[in-house]
Amino acid sequence: MHPRRLSILGVGLLGGSIGLAARSRLTGFHIVGYAHRPETLEAARSMEAIQQGYDQPGPAVRGADLIILCTPVGVLPKVLHEIAGELPHGAIVTDVGSTKRTIVDAARAVLPPHVRFVGSHPMAGSEKRGVQFARGDLFDGATCITTPTSETDPDALQTVEDFWRAIGMKPTRLSPEEHDRILADVSHLPHALAAALVAMQDDAAMPLCGKGFLDATRIAAGDGGLWKDILIDNGDNVRASIKRIMSELTRLDGFLAAADAQNLEKWLHEAALRRQLAGEMKKQ
Amino acid sequence: MHPRRLSILGVGLLGGSIGLAARSRLTGFHIVGYAHRPETLEAARSMEAIQQGYDQPGPAVRGADLIILCTPVGVLPKVLHEIAGELPHGAIVTDVGSTKRTIVDAARAVLPPHVRFVGSHPMAGSEKRGVQFARGDLFDGATCITTPTSETDPDALQTVEDFWRAIGMKPTRLSPEEHDRILADVSHLPHALAAALVAMQDDAAMPLCGKGFLDATRIAAGDGGLWKDILIDNGDNVRASIKRIMSELTRLDGFLAAADAQNLEKWLHEAALRRQLAGEMKKQ
Repeated sequence: MHPRRLSILGVGLLGGSIGLAARSRLTGFHIVGYAHRPETLEAARSMEAIQQGYDQPGPAVRGADLIILCTPVGVLPKVLHEIAGELPHGAIVTDVGSTKRTIVDAARAVLPPHVRFVGSHPMAGSEKRGVQFARGDLFDGATCITTPTSETDPDALQTVEDFWRAIGMKPTRLSPEEHDRILADVSHLPHALAAALVAMQDDAAMPLCGKGFLDATRIAAGDGGLWKDILIDNGDNVRASIKRIMSELTRLDGFLAAADAQNLEKWLHEAALRRQLAGEMKKQ
Repeated sequence: MHPRRLSILGVGLLGGSIGLAARSRLTGFHIVGYAHRPETLEAARSMEAIQQGYDQPGPAVRGADLIILCTPVGVLPKVLHEIAGELPHGAIVTDVGSTKRTIVDAARAVLPPHVRFVGSHPMAGSEKRGVQFARGDLFDGATCITTPTSETDPDALQTVEDFWRAIGMKPTRLSPEEHDRILADVSHLPHALAAALVAMQDDAAMPLCGKGFLDATRIAAGDGGLWKDILIDNGDNVRASIKRIMSELTRLDGFLAAADAQNLEKWLHEAALRRQLAGEMKKQ
């Protein structure tokens, strides 16, 4: 199935970038969008990320066959409630949220049976926020995780993955549970850790932070409100990740307490090799 | 005093970059260097980072009036012993080590009274290693911490700071103790944390790490042997820093356990503001 009317709910950095990418790479699409603030809608229209704007989610989904939820994770369930009664028969709904169990459960509970939901997480973004930072090439080469369950319609999954592929991403599948567990380790914990590293600094030390510190903490400059939602929503997994990094730090502390140069070097060397490998994999 | 003969002991990434920067910005300097491996010396000579090479530290310092120790932190005291009997009267010795208490103490204990030592830490570098990555602009705009004590000769301090300034850096002064305490927080802990973040990942998670993870862990790709020396040498301070970040993580865990969205957002928001500010300061 090739969708004809695309509805983007929340035209911020991600939603706006989806609109720009879809307009430049797909034809025969009418792209509409919803945003709460009139300035956002106006900006999205004037940069041609959307062709038509709505200040309510309900009207924005009427007649749409592909709806992409791009609002912050914390308000996704509320938006689902607002559109549930307006969705056309056979519409496919997906999202771009950084956590997946809650939205998949909410879609199952809230959406009517004539609508098909597929959870998605495009692994692209920025520490910046707002449609003014949207870019049509934001998704180029990025991984997009879809989270089908036993109830997911295979055709809807195919349509959603084809769409992500068309705007430049490589789709891969995980269950919502696996997604949330793995993302706690590779994304949510790194964010929390970067924030903790900034939070623990003395004011007097900040002028002495170098490039290494700035690289390591770049993600901590991201929007606190968005990340609060993500960390709370995935709290159980993030807490398990915190526990594991603390035991890793306790291990390091043991090497230092014993001045155990041999095991410390082995530990650092293995981490360096794994990090170099991860960097190489991303370049391919 | 304007030095005439510069001796760089250890022509790797930092030593080679000092040679290149000095050659392009200072005149009337004869630059010599020591390296253990003949290939390194040959590479340093052919890229004109040094004009003359030695495979022993002793001969490399004969006749030199400014000597810069650029070997890994772990072998600095050994190199001091090797050059102590060869240093000309009035020579000034400095270094580029990432820790300062040990080298300042070793210089006091090992160097003869007719030689003046000033501890330095140019805050520039790379996760790469080797003279082939040396660049004449590596130090542009970087901070260089000098660590004078009550025994430091003011003229020698001035000469060393003038040299760092001439190759592009902004000198600033700290005691060796302050230096090691602050650098544990802004540099050594971030490195250890990045390594711990890589070490704790499951193999299955690594292909899903995104740009945020790669930025946050870039420093962990650095040389394990060099960092082992730094972390062990500054072990007491690094252990105190580990303790503080663990208490920050315990605080975060408390917010998540209580689903305390308000305090979590405040904590994240403050970290984001501090990080943004640090980034702005560096741009100036």
